[in-house]
Amino acid sequence: MSTARNYTFCTVALIGKYQSREIAQSLRALAAFLRERGLEVLVEEGTAAEVGSNGYEVASYATIAARANLAVILGGDGTMLNAARHLAGVEVPLLGINQGRLGFMTDIALGAMTDSITALLEGKFSRERRFLLNAEVRRVGATDFQTLAMNDVVVNKGESGRMIELEVKVDGELIHVLRADGLIVSTPTGSTAYALSANGPILHPSVHGIAIVPLCPHALSNRPITISDSSTIDITLLSHHDARVHFDGQTRFDVRAGDVVHIARSSHAITLLHPPGYSYFAMLREKLQWTATPRH
Amino acid sequence: MSTARNYTFCTVALIGKYQSREIAQSLRALAAFLRERGLEVLVEEGTAAEVGSNGYEVASYATIAARANLAVILGGDGTMLNAARHLAGVEVPLLGINQGRLGFMTDIALGAMTDSITALLEGKFSRERRFLLNAEVRRVGATDFQTLAMNDVVVNKGESGRMIELEVKVDGELIHVLRADGLIVSTPTGSTAYALSANGPILHPSVHGIAIVPLCPHALSNRPITISDSSTIDITLLSHHDARVHFDGQTRFDVRAGDVVHIARSSHAITLLHPPGYSYFAMLREKLQWTATPRH
Amino acid sequence: MSTARNYTFCTVALIGKYQSREIAQSLRALAAFLRERGLEVLVEEGTAAEVGSNGYEVASYATIAARANLAVILGGDGTMLNAARHLAGVEVPLLGINQGRLGFMTDIALGAMTDSITALLEGKFSRERRFLLNAEVRRVGATDFQTLAMNDVVVNKGESGRMIELEVKVDGELIHVLRADGLIVSTPTGSTAYALSANGPILHPSVHGIAIVPLCPHALSNRPITISDSSTIDITLLSHHDARVHFDGQTRFDVRAGDVVHIARSSHAITLLHPPGYSYFAMLREKLQWTATPRH
Amino acid sequence: MSTARNYTFCTVALIGKYQSREIAQSLRALAAFLRERGLEVLVEEGTAAEVGSNGYEVASYATIAARANLAVILGGDGTMLNAARHLAGVEVPLLGINQGRLGFMTDIALGAMTDSITALLEGKFSRERRFLLNAEVRRVGATDFQTLAMNDVVVNKGESGRMIELEVKVDGELIHVLRADGLIVSTPTGSTAYALSANGPILHPSVHGIAIVPLCPHALSNRPITISDSSTIDITLLSHHDARVHFDGQTRFDVRAGDVVHIARSSHAITLLHPPGYSYFAMLREKLQWTATPRH
Repeated sequence: MSTARNYTFCTVALIGKYQSREIAQSLRALAAFLRERGLEVLVEEGTAAEVGSNGYEVASYATIAARANLAVILGGDGTMLNAARHLAGVEVPLLGINQGRLGFMTDIALGAMTDSITALLEGKFSRERRFLLNAEVRRVGATDFQTLAMNDVVVNKGESGRMIELEVKVDGELIHVLRADGLIVSTPTGSTAYALSANGPILHPSVHGIAIVPLCPHALSNRPITISDSSTIDITLLSHHDARVHFDGQTRFDVRAGDVVHIARSSHAITLLHPPGYSYFAMLREKLQWTATPRH
Repeated sequence: MSTARNYTFCTVALIGKYQSREIAQSLRALAAFLRERGLEVLVEEGTAAEVGSNGYEVASYATIAARANLAVILGGDGTMLNAARHLAGVEVPLLGINQGRLGFMTDIALGAMTDSITALLEGKFSRERRFLLNAEVRRVGATDFQTLAMNDVVVNKGESGRMIELEVKVDGELIHVLRADGLIVSTPTGSTAYALSANGPILHPSVHGIAIVPLCPHALSNRPITISDSSTIDITLLSHHDARVHFDGQTRFDVRAGDVVHIARSSHAITLLHPPGYSYFAMLREKLQWTATPRH
Repeated sequence: MSTARNYTFCTVALIGKYQSREIAQSLRALAAFLRERGLEVLVEEGTAAEVGSNGYEVASYATIAARANLAVILGGDGTMLNAARHLAGVEVPLLGINQGRLGFMTDIALGAMTDSITALLEGKFSRERRFLLNAEVRRVGATDFQTLAMNDVVVNKGESGRMIELEVKVDGELIHVLRADGLIVSTPTGSTAYALSANGPILHPSVHGIAIVPLCPHALSNRPITISDSSTIDITLLSHHDARVHFDGQTRFDVRAGDVVHIARSSHAITLLHPPGYSYFAMLREKLQWTATPRH
Repeated sequence: MSTARNYTFCTVALIGKYQSREIAQSLRALAAFLRERGLEVLVEEGTAAEVGSNGYEVASYATIAARANLAVILGGDGTMLNAARHLAGVEVPLLGINQGRLGFMTDIALGAMTDSITALLEGKFSRERRFLLNAEVRRVGATDFQTLAMNDVVVNKGESGRMIELEVKVDGELIHVLRADGLIVSTPTGSTAYALSANGPILHPSVHGIAIVPLCPHALSNRPITISDSSTIDITLLSHHDARVHFDGQTRFDVRAGDVVHIARSSHAITLLHPPGYSYFAMLREKLQWTATPRH
């Protein structure tokens, strides 16, 4: 994380929480604040459809990618994930303002919005790169499915509720044949999300690693493994009952026996901006209720 | 891990398990085998003191560091750790031949010793770098204690058996004030050793990470964190009862309130050699009894 | 567990693994062995449909319940569960002969079948009672669903893959509002099955307890709780997306917001018979690969 | 837990936190309040030595056992444990008023002290029985050591910091030979104390079970087991390096190879009194920060 001072933000895109009207007021206030300072404001089209454009220009993600210098997310971590997947690979940095509880990525409280944006426009902020995963589902004789994930790719048992069997390879080399409810492949960003609930390791964003976390594995010695983010992962469904692959909990693809989920670090990354004083560990302490002061 | 073919092994040091006579026969056989092929053999002095030199040259670690092109470890992972700490920073690669159960690092079975060494002398092997930790204990007004660790630095509660309180900082930034039995700071190499018993994450040797693993933390949300291996860690003992620091389970230093354990990646690293066909994941499967074959 | 000697086994029912032809040979051998000793043999009708009756009387579960003094299960733990749920509440003891890997309940190896049955007919065996759960799904304005479970009742997230929210009460008193992938309610028998994969506690069969085990809970402090088996549990689905309830992994019921799953110890129990020398802990050691001999 | 109304409290003993002067004021206030209502007040002698007797009768634990109808603990769970071990086997019920953070057993907040005591004197309270463990260390040719524990008996590795090897038997039957940092044997009361930090199961006080929880076991499949509280446990130290046994974290005994720690439910139990409205689960929610309200 380093502080950059020679950024110029001329055009700012505002992206709100999906199908949520609660953000209408914050969005209006923020848009007015930005226009007042001479900045051009774009309102993402899905957001505008929900809360109205208030006279600001309505823009698709393609337009935002082409024209915005900054995208401000009004919502929670889910909203951030969705925006990140749309804007991966374009150099539009993201800033997250949570609308309720502090998020792992939406780390600016609503009440601090104006101060944080002011500081930002003065060049007072830090930048952080977060990598994404590229995931493909390969099926013999069929068109591949491909998408990105900022948090995780999750292979999960299907409707029958029965354990699935997965062959897991890293760089073409077998790790194991896993019998489990499923498997999470997570970025450092995702390591504090679903993977953490499954006893996965927290990976600091600066770690070049990918966590492979089994879900309720049948063998008690099946522990999470972290591999280099330059490695590729191939997960083959061996079971004859169905399974599902979830990407960031937002996109889903149903797989069947023989399908291979191929995962590698994407060439696309995302830039998060943080307000002055941001600390990853302070955020963790807040979210996970860790102690900062001695008892004795 | 890459295969090197232009290595030349002229002088080979043999290092046996500490105070163990069981290795005498393997050592004699291996020394004879090497001499037959025209190689010079050095027997580490502690090893010679235990099992005799059999007419081969007896050498201190300093001599081994200066003259050997290869050190063959006859023992388990503990023997390897000890040799690694003595030979860190000198370019003597290590090869481990276990004397009983397969180790995580001593990955050649006794029965495969001759074949593996033959292959090695023909240049058929792979190399792997493993980093070490440099640890210092800092006490106001006192000489610092300093040592290396290949597996882990463990801060543990002392004789009273009472929980200790530790302030943990990374790159000068507070993670948390931890109340626990202790804390493990582990390399990827150590991640399959003690840290694994404490629910730490397995880190593949290629991951540039250091795991920080709490031991029986009072707060249930205190999970292991993996940070970049370019970060430094400072652990301050806050409690007024005693605590101990263990380095690779081999060296120990008693700390008291106010002492700081400062840990960073050492500039020294170790090179492990592996026989043809070695696979880190195959070794994990063997050690952790993971399945390699589908059930259905 | 106590040894009973005054049992008389006149009529023995044979129950085979569901839709499996592999057991045909064992079943024939066992039936012949029993008839030779003057016992009446019943072949469960589903089993007979798969592997043939070989001239023995084909019987429904109702007939088995009315007439058999013993039911021998040829299969794995799943076969045992299924038979147990059919025969709960009737005093037909069950004996399990596994057809492959040793099961937690099917603890007689195929090779030991004849010896074990011979011992049994001589009154050499021990008896063990295992309680079952009675589970009901209650929906306003709809007919309740009711079934039994010997292992567990599992509430699990549905097709969307999104976390569900459950209100969990014990004896009418709130434990918590849980946000998780789901929740397992397990008997001691089930504590070594799915619940164990979810970090649930192993409960010895003599413990009068029911384990409540969250599946990937959002809050890291949500740990499994064991309550008395005289308590009742009410789980209300609060989320507006779908969820599923699985009973012993064999029966399933889809629930929706507002549905209550009511669980209590069933008045029905099952009697398992074990061969001479059976030990619960020896079985655990075998299944979980625990050590029985000192290293040093 | 049931409500009793025909209790009469004539003589009340006050027991304060060990070597703590902070409780002086609460103790004076409580003593005055009780005397005003015509009750006889005893101040435990260790407590009096620290904060003075203020003119009230000073009493040993023996006197308290003989004369008091109620003992009020002013302190935390540690104070309660200590008092419980002194008063086990005599029918003096205990009531805990915490002096800082709410405890698992000292469940009355300082601010609610007067109201709770008033309610109590009116017969408005509930009673709860908690069993204790009796522990003996048996050494050939030596006098046994014997003590009680309300929370736990912990066998822990000694000064060397090296893993110990323990043979664990239940009712004379081998569970396993455990290689670990140690082992916790915990009552339901202790299941929310140290055992919880070691991933032990929470056992509701009404469960007749004892939890056996390994500390950092070498084998990843070594999970906690809960056995019936009518079972006995024998733990034999096999290692040749030292180990320690801690009882409720308050008493300690050093063991050596061959020593056997024999643990069984004590014939003594403790009665805790709770104020009206007390809920075990509400206390757990408070202490473990579980959610009580739906998010959606």
